[in-house]
Amino acid sequence: MGNTFGKIFRVTTFGESHGAAIGAVIDGCPPRLPLSENDIQAQMNRRRPGQSAYTTARKESDRVRILSGVEKSITLGSPIMILIENEDTRANDYEELQNIPRPSHADFTYRLKYGVTSTSGGGRASARETAARVAAGAVAEKFLKLSHNIQITAWVSAIEDVEWEPDSIAHITREIVDKSPVRCPEPTISARMEKAVAKAKNDGDSVGGIISCICRNVPAGLGEPVFDKAHALLGAAMLSIPACRAFEIGDGIEGSRMRGSVHNDLFVKKENRIGTETNRSGGIQGGITNGEDVFFRVAFKPTATIRIEQKTVDYDGNEITLPPSKGRHDPCVLPRAVPVVESMAALVLADLILQAGMYK
Amino acid sequence: MGNTFGKIFRVTTFGESHGAAIGAVIDGCPPRLPLSENDIQAQMNRRRPGQSAYTTARKESDRVRILSGVEKSITLGSPIMILIENEDTRANDYEELQNIPRPSHADFTYRLKYGVTSTSGGGRASARETAARVAAGAVAEKFLKLSHNIQITAWVSAIEDVEWEPDSIAHITREIVDKSPVRCPEPTISARMEKAVAKAKNDGDSVGGIISCICRNVPAGLGEPVFDKAHALLGAAMLSIPACRAFEIGDGIEGSRMRGSVHNDLFVKKENRIGTETNRSGGIQGGITNGEDVFFRVAFKPTATIRIEQKTVDYDGNEITLPPSKGRHDPCVLPRAVPVVESMAALVLADLILQAGMYK
Amino acid sequence: MGNTFGKIFRVTTFGESHGAAIGAVIDGCPPRLPLSENDIQAQMNRRRPGQSAYTTARKESDRVRILSGVEKSITLGSPIMILIENEDTRANDYEELQNIPRPSHADFTYRLKYGVTSTSGGGRASARETAARVAAGAVAEKFLKLSHNIQITAWVSAIEDVEWEPDSIAHITREIVDKSPVRCPEPTISARMEKAVAKAKNDGDSVGGIISCICRNVPAGLGEPVFDKAHALLGAAMLSIPACRAFEIGDGIEGSRMRGSVHNDLFVKKENRIGTETNRSGGIQGGITNGEDVFFRVAFKPTATIRIEQKTVDYDGNEITLPPSKGRHDPCVLPRAVPVVESMAALVLADLILQAGMYK
Amino acid sequence: MGNTFGKIFRVTTFGESHGAAIGAVIDGCPPRLPLSENDIQAQMNRRRPGQSAYTTARKESDRVRILSGVEKSITLGSPIMILIENEDTRANDYEELQNIPRPSHADFTYRLKYGVTSTSGGGRASARETAARVAAGAVAEKFLKLSHNIQITAWVSAIEDVEWEPDSIAHITREIVDKSPVRCPEPTISARMEKAVAKAKNDGDSVGGIISCICRNVPAGLGEPVFDKAHALLGAAMLSIPACRAFEIGDGIEGSRMRGSVHNDLFVKKENRIGTETNRSGGIQGGITNGEDVFFRVAFKPTATIRIEQKTVDYDGNEITLPPSKGRHDPCVLPRAVPVVESMAALVLADLILQAGMYK
Repeated sequence: MGNTFGKIFRVTTFGESHGAAIGAVIDGCPPRLPLSENDIQAQMNRRRPGQSAYTTARKESDRVRILSGVEKSITLGSPIMILIENEDTRANDYEELQNIPRPSHADFTYRLKYGVTSTSGGGRASARETAARVAAGAVAEKFLKLSHNIQITAWVSAIEDVEWEPDSIAHITREIVDKSPVRCPEPTISARMEKAVAKAKNDGDSVGGIISCICRNVPAGLGEPVFDKAHALLGAAMLSIPACRAFEIGDGIEGSRMRGSVHNDLFVKKENRIGTETNRSGGIQGGITNGEDVFFRVAFKPTATIRIEQKTVDYDGNEITLPPSKGRHDPCVLPRAVPVVESMAALVLADLILQAGMYK
Repeated sequence: MGNTFGKIFRVTTFGESHGAAIGAVIDGCPPRLPLSENDIQAQMNRRRPGQSAYTTARKESDRVRILSGVEKSITLGSPIMILIENEDTRANDYEELQNIPRPSHADFTYRLKYGVTSTSGGGRASARETAARVAAGAVAEKFLKLSHNIQITAWVSAIEDVEWEPDSIAHITREIVDKSPVRCPEPTISARMEKAVAKAKNDGDSVGGIISCICRNVPAGLGEPVFDKAHALLGAAMLSIPACRAFEIGDGIEGSRMRGSVHNDLFVKKENRIGTETNRSGGIQGGITNGEDVFFRVAFKPTATIRIEQKTVDYDGNEITLPPSKGRHDPCVLPRAVPVVESMAALVLADLILQAGMYK
Repeated sequence: MGNTFGKIFRVTTFGESHGAAIGAVIDGCPPRLPLSENDIQAQMNRRRPGQSAYTTARKESDRVRILSGVEKSITLGSPIMILIENEDTRANDYEELQNIPRPSHADFTYRLKYGVTSTSGGGRASARETAARVAAGAVAEKFLKLSHNIQITAWVSAIEDVEWEPDSIAHITREIVDKSPVRCPEPTISARMEKAVAKAKNDGDSVGGIISCICRNVPAGLGEPVFDKAHALLGAAMLSIPACRAFEIGDGIEGSRMRGSVHNDLFVKKENRIGTETNRSGGIQGGITNGEDVFFRVAFKPTATIRIEQKTVDYDGNEITLPPSKGRHDPCVLPRAVPVVESMAALVLADLILQAGMYK
Repeated sequence: MGNTFGKIFRVTTFGESHGAAIGAVIDGCPPRLPLSENDIQAQMNRRRPGQSAYTTARKESDRVRILSGVEKSITLGSPIMILIENEDTRANDYEELQNIPRPSHADFTYRLKYGVTSTSGGGRASARETAARVAAGAVAEKFLKLSHNIQITAWVSAIEDVEWEPDSIAHITREIVDKSPVRCPEPTISARMEKAVAKAKNDGDSVGGIISCICRNVPAGLGEPVFDKAHALLGAAMLSIPACRAFEIGDGIEGSRMRGSVHNDLFVKKENRIGTETNRSGGIQGGITNGEDVFFRVAFKPTATIRIEQKTVDYDGNEITLPPSKGRHDPCVLPRAVPVVESMAALVLADLILQAGMYK
């Protein structure tokens, strides 16, 4: 259970990190949308490893194949199945770990829950699983662009203790984001972040950080009251990404320190609609989008896999010293998590548009 | 849509703030549990207004009636319907607001989405809706106590800029929490928080803050991989509470500034199980509980309703000055939100236990 | 579990036969529909007992109260809660049955499944449960009428071995149906059916039969491929009605004896659309409505409760002779099941219209 | 939508009849079950074409590949993805049909609903889609056998007007069923059925019929009250199979002609449990299995595709004569539908066992 996301635009993902393939089935994508494998590949390439010195050495071309639901580059309204074959699997890298749960990994909890584990590093709990999210998210993004010209852009706003606090985010695009190897749009901050990652990598250690995300042109009226508020669904979507530990909508925690008279977003007349002067609410009020940009932040913990020995115990409770990891991993997941955050946001928004009956 | 929570332990709530009644139907509660209205009333009383000078003046006894699913104080396995009649409704308080959306309230987005609004202050978007969550949560808590002796305790850890950073939380119980009128277990901090609320109230203003929550005796193995991770569901549950703006599991944002070598929770042998030395993960790894206490934090924005005039526009876009609110409200929702946080946590855990097939 | 029906137009029912109340919560009903308690009461009255000599002696006014989701006779888009208080409960009638499972009743299977039973005759398994379906169905019917002027009419086409095979059903309306005490539109057949019921009642016995149903003005395009075909959902809806044992769409079993060249519905040009010459498909092809009338038949077994002694065993396996029932019951459920069939059809169609995004 | 079946044992299928591949993803299959491709292939082979003179000429080896969820022939508890590549596609066979809806096919309703159709004969509406059901059903059967030794056997009990009314069905096994080319266990009836199919085929026509199914060793307690009754879910499952038009549980329509005193299944003491003397209920009472064999019947209409010309209209409403079909098809789907019926029954029972928490 737990491998399906969404109510109407429903995505089911499958595949182990070191198995034959991973992929996604999308049920509920509207018919008659133009869609090709190239539409998906672009975002896949932004997530796949090997784009900089800061990512895992695993080599995956992440080539997507659409096996159903699309004919002549047009969606049919039937399930869209996207397959991504695993190429560079090395189950053997993990064999010595069969009796030792890696600290802060899912090894321990999976073994407890299922009584069996995949021979691979993480099976379903590997970051490799997110490739399927990006494939599905790219389809959702195509839909969002066609239906409401919605644009989703995420970037790295903090790594370790290097944090970027921008005066304005109005100029940020994916092109600007991608100019930075750590995906921080501000060059001087980016340089400091790169140093932080390089230093951690050099130390055999890892770092975490924060990703910010803005969704532009989101129509008002998305989100369902009480339990399915738009930011609750966005929160669940983000928190389901491996290593994600916190979610803030709008001003988030900082806003909790303000007074109401400061925090309230006053209404003002904008061109063809009523908008708000400030956007501390992050575009969502009472759980429903209000027509302003949707803005949120997501915190990731440092990668659990490190090249430093750790004193821990094996499954029998014997104290052991876990040697530095030989498995391939990223010292900092943040740069590659940027398209994953965008993809999950796209899945939430696509589903909410269809739930609200706002696509025809 | 959006008024049902959970997959197996399913709660559907209903009722407008100023309508005839609110309530909840629980489908999926196991049979043969002892359950009476008194079990529910205790927690209802912790949420209802009028417990201190810092809460709304609205008078509601919040008396619950179980109308189905229970006979002779034993659950039957059929839907449990809990009804709470509204007593102190004053729809007229809000009449003048029919043409003015209150800033940072749900008035504007509801009107846009539904094209009709309840005559009451907030309808479904009112904090009154949370009474039904607490009623259902109390049933879930009864189940959790009987099945695994799970204990859930929340408290106020920050109001405005007054934050409590405890050395230890091992001693905190609901009894200790309830000794403070603002539900902060540390008396000196509590006193400062009370002052902050009193000052805001005196200014006609409002304040927000942070609630922390610990769930003890949670068995390992709860949570479903990929999209239904335990902390993703907890996050959605919390973010669905009115005024909630951020969620952190374990060390949350602070953890995102640590290195992996510091953040990783090393395994150690505990009495009859393998546990972790530290608990930066907040009891959840890979989305699945690991047997340690589940710990999270939830940030709330300041109450949107204030007794200060605000420059805003009406639905026609005309600039107007909204006079100070005459509606009854809390200057700080945190103290009364404590049982709501506990209730939502209980709903998530009850559902995950049943999903995992861990109750017999 | 199992007490919720539908995906978007979602109905959750609750209540034991001899408990305090029964009712339904509807989540997903569109806003801005005119709706009053009177809209619901009319169909409730067609189901409630006491309309003829052939029904149970239990006296229930089945007065509905809408406690949420409607203000000033307009739906708000929030959950509509409908409460029906039980008036004429007699749990004592069933006390002697606490140790004897009634043959072909749900007593045995409920006891096995839940390990506890309501003191009442049937608890959730009683036909009384269907009152909540009719209440919710009446709301769905209001929606169907407003959105597409859909009209649903069911009638009794067979009781025991008296079967009516009409030349045409084009003229049948609820008014015509209700002229017959057994709800068969053809007077001479109705008279024979009445005799069959009277004779069975006189013998202390019971009879079953068949209900036919036609849904007019159903737009083409309802139903979802593969598993949620329109007739699969209709089938599940009907088979969930107490005592229902078979479902046929269109020509059903009779059609299975035809050849394709006879059974195929040839397309013809109709006024403003393409239709079919015959309607052996019952208005559904490939699981999707084609614009013709939706037609189906539903078979009900004879009432299990009889006033004849039966040789059976108690829960301990001791052979006993169960005396003639003293509980109140219908010798034939068919006439009162007519509005229940209509209501379940309405719930299916309302949900499919919303799933298909065909209501604006 | 509509391509997912089940609540806990959830199957999502995908794939067009003449696309690259079809397949299924199963989420919720318990971990630690032995499972190999061979387990699935056996039942696939019973469904695939080319087993007798009475089936389509399309050549498909229907070779299944498990791409995830299984390692070393053991299920991991993660999604099981099964891929079946299409081999003998001939989209061109259908090109001339792009402007003519075939009578009683899904062409017309799909075009109306989606505004686009696959170039193939039926896309998702083709009987080819059922291959994915059988693949998933085989996994469910493996689970059912291991958990409760449940055995499901279906057979053809009627073709056109040749009907087999057996004295006893206790002896029927798949081996016996498979000895008949039309899958009727009684040789003399089978011979008559074969003649009926051969004659129809010779005439360029098609025939329908009835499949009966028995599920042995089903534990008591499966099925959820009110809307998710076991026979309602079985009914929906069967009615979702292409060409299925009716469903009867137990004595079905025949039972509706009996009196209660005849129809009631009296309880008797059996070896280690209380059972019923007769089984007119088909093993389900009050929607919950009672420990007797589950028995039901399913009616199929004659194949819509025939080699006889038909007077119909094209999409523009012009009267045309549709020439005899050149597409490959079965003159009678019943024999190949037998494993499909078994598979859908397996999916329902597996899901209900998990819903009831009856697998450990």
